[in-house]
Amino acid sequence: MSLVVVGSVAYDGVETPHGKVDRILGGSCTYIALAASFFTKTQIVAVVGEDFGQEDADLLSSKGVDLEGLERVSGKTFFWQGVYSADMNDRTTLRTDLNVFANFQPKLPELYKGKPYLMLGNIQPALQSSVRAQMPGVRLAGGDTMNYWISDYRVELLETIKGLDFLLLNDSEARMLSGESNLRRAANRILDLGPNTLVIKRGEYGALLFRRDRVFMAPGYLLETVFDPTGAGDCFAGGFMGYLAGQGVDLRDESVDFRELGRAVIYGSVMGSFCCEQFGVDRFRTLTRGEIDGRFQEFKNATEF
Amino acid sequence: MSLVVVGSVAYDGVETPHGKVDRILGGSCTYIALAASFFTKTQIVAVVGEDFGQEDADLLSSKGVDLEGLERVSGKTFFWQGVYSADMNDRTTLRTDLNVFANFQPKLPELYKGKPYLMLGNIQPALQSSVRAQMPGVRLAGGDTMNYWISDYRVELLETIKGLDFLLLNDSEARMLSGESNLRRAANRILDLGPNTLVIKRGEYGALLFRRDRVFMAPGYLLETVFDPTGAGDCFAGGFMGYLAGQGVDLRDESVDFRELGRAVIYGSVMGSFCCEQFGVDRFRTLTRGEIDGRFQEFKNATEF
Repeated sequence: MSLVVVGSVAYDGVETPHGKVDRILGGSCTYIALAASFFTKTQIVAVVGEDFGQEDADLLSSKGVDLEGLERVSGKTFFWQGVYSADMNDRTTLRTDLNVFANFQPKLPELYKGKPYLMLGNIQPALQSSVRAQMPGVRLAGGDTMNYWISDYRVELLETIKGLDFLLLNDSEARMLSGESNLRRAANRILDLGPNTLVIKRGEYGALLFRRDRVFMAPGYLLETVFDPTGAGDCFAGGFMGYLAGQGVDLRDESVDFRELGRAVIYGSVMGSFCCEQFGVDRFRTLTRGEIDGRFQEFKNATEF
Repeated sequence: MSLVVVGSVAYDGVETPHGKVDRILGGSCTYIALAASFFTKTQIVAVVGEDFGQEDADLLSSKGVDLEGLERVSGKTFFWQGVYSADMNDRTTLRTDLNVFANFQPKLPELYKGKPYLMLGNIQPALQSSVRAQMPGVRLAGGDTMNYWISDYRVELLETIKGLDFLLLNDSEARMLSGESNLRRAANRILDLGPNTLVIKRGEYGALLFRRDRVFMAPGYLLETVFDPTGAGDCFAGGFMGYLAGQGVDLRDESVDFRELGRAVIYGSVMGSFCCEQFGVDRFRTLTRGEIDGRFQEFKNATEF
């Protein structure tokens, strides 16, 4: 089934110990849609400026991503620049130019409004809520956020979270949002806020999926070289939501097959791991579904006992 | 099959955010033997002083631990005192009195020398080697170590490691020993040093088992409360080696059932998690094999997809 993705489409300048690029395609919406495109039909809602390259639009189209909701306005596309530490576990933002993103008011094409799956990438909570409101009949609404919205936009964010079935956080965000340092207790508090399903990402250590009284634990994939971690969390979201949409999974169903949710977490982990193998979205230019399923099987072989 | 355990039997003073105890039974040998005792018959080789309490010897005996190799000499038992940080991820050693341990020269009772399984707890590498040499026909020799021996006793330690089938390290020790920050590459280097099997513990994030071209990844158990983490790594070792000994697994067999090794890692994780639930060894006073298997099943339910 079809998945609508909302978020940023951007240009990034990235420096890692492996090299430096001045301006490559990036943004949460881009990464989520590309990762999800391997599992299901994807539509995006985002804004770009006059400088947005045809080759970048072509890349998205070539993966079957529907661009009707990609607004083009005068001005420049959102630009982010950052540099990673030697061990890749920290990054410093050098520059954030919101540009056309500053006045982004997401408007869904009529055709998108009836789609069953929605993933709200990490943008201002009020914008996430406005998109959620445009899809009242959605079957599964998922969302991502970040520390900045949790600390400075808490009221707005809690309102957004109330309308979500699925929330994606990393461990420090989960602790910040819940006020609990223990992750099991943090998860229970967050499930009280609205979502029936929570995924807590732990970077190289994997991910945890929580529902009431049930947890799935996934270890992280052991890459020999992390080339560029930018977008890995978004690719997790894309693989997770893309798989659920492709399978038509209903998270509101209390008797949903729990192993199906585990498979979604593993596909999310697989897509996040591929993302790290090259700069920006480059790995997705050549990635095949066969490679994806091969790595999924690697996870199975490495976790069965 | 029978497992011989060598290491320290000690008294500990421990302070965690949950409380403080001045003097309780501890030591690597104690924790390994207690954890292993739920899976197989266990013999210990260690030294204690005149102050060693009968009730502590009785606890070990009550679990079927053979004390013939527990030497009693004049003087005081090894004493360690430490305090944990608020998040339990760091601890500071306040006091280490080697006492009778300073002159420890492990001598195996004749009956022990023919036993098939050996676990060398974290003590000076030369002592580990001397024990290994007393059991030339051993079927599976495992060992643990720590950062201090890696940095200051490297030559001795490399000699010990050469004689091991199985080595247990945490992630920072694996990086220090191999000089590689990437864990997959670090593991390959360490497997070149002698052992056919390496387990890298990652604390709350679980554990990784490496053999040539094969890896098993276990997530960490999600405890709601970590009461006292002292001994958790030793209990992992005890659960892991105890299970292998109980099943008669031969790590030198290249066609060994890999899922059996995964089950050993999970039982190690289970024993480590129980250890954290109460101060010192207290949890093992009441723990049952049924509870152990229940938690093993919890791991299965939380990782199958």
